[in-house]
Amino acid sequence: MITIESLKNAIRTVPDFPQPGIQFKDLTTMLKQPDLLKYVVSTTARYYQQKGITKIVGIESRGFIIGGALAAELEAGFVPVRKPNRLPAEVYRKSYALEYGENTIEIHRDALNPDDVVLLHDDLLATGGTALAAIDLIRQFHVREIHINFIVELDWLKGRDKLTPSYDIYTLVHF
Amino acid sequence: MITIESLKNAIRTVPDFPQPGIQFKDLTTMLKQPDLLKYVVSTTARYYQQKGITKIVGIESRGFIIGGALAAELEAGFVPVRKPNRLPAEVYRKSYALEYGENTIEIHRDALNPDDVVLLHDDLLATGGTALAAIDLIRQFHVREIHINFIVELDWLKGRDKLTPSYDIYTLVHF
Repeated sequence: MITIESLKNAIRTVPDFPQPGIQFKDLTTMLKQPDLLKYVVSTTARYYQQKGITKIVGIESRGFIIGGALAAELEAGFVPVRKPNRLPAEVYRKSYALEYGENTIEIHRDALNPDDVVLLHDDLLATGGTALAAIDLIRQFHVREIHINFIVELDWLKGRDKLTPSYDIYTLVHF
Repeated sequence: MITIESLKNAIRTVPDFPQPGIQFKDLTTMLKQPDLLKYVVSTTARYYQQKGITKIVGIESRGFIIGGALAAELEAGFVPVRKPNRLPAEVYRKSYALEYGENTIEIHRDALNPDDVVLLHDDLLATGGTALAAIDLIRQFHVREIHINFIVELDWLKGRDKLTPSYDIYTLVHF
């Protein structure tokens, strides 16, 4: 039987990636296993089944994988949040601070509308900077509701504190 | 009723992106529509249902969206092919020529095994350079079969000629 513990055991920790001192959580070792990928998608979809989600917003790149699967499973549309200059039409843009330097993300201006109930999805919640910037982008559309979902959350980085109490967050695996 | 023509009409053409003279096919206007996304996933999955696919290999970034959905739908694993230095463990690497300069893609060395029946997926087939490089990466694992799938194919660029007759290609929408 597959459990949350099976997922946890299938995730590989890579020391010092992408830089010294970081213990990188590598989900590829989990996603390549058909039964574990299916469990992630169906368990997450079950949680959101009754919430009337109309759009999954997935964060480039790793948030596209299970984000796309959730869109199909929940019969929602899929909207990408991307790195700069990759979306071809008019965008909203948001820059945010990193430990060193800054990042920018974009969303198409015709991606969402006020009737949408949005599920923001990324593979992993660390400090929460990217998720918060993505929420800022989504808020520009005055959508009805924003829900937030991750596969993995690194509890000790307290990214959740940046996002609650305004938003409900559902995460499958906690480290 | 949704047809291939509905998909075609929902795809936006953006002139001169990412550079002058390119007529960019923007699939975001299709993927944001729940019924069209569902049609893409279920029609493609139906085509591969009896082929015993064990792994979907998706090409970063846009090949992750429907690639992830196909993995869940076909109960296969998902394996990413990524741009350089983004995969944290040991990789195989392949460089290939572009019109100007070159590109490099990578796959984890533990991503596939000889028992796998692989479905390589990307959103769009243009000249076929990236798909051919991805096939070279997959061939290193000596997998049982390689199938290839795109949502959109730009027929006049003849990318298909680079990939056949060795491989069967299934594309939903032709321009």
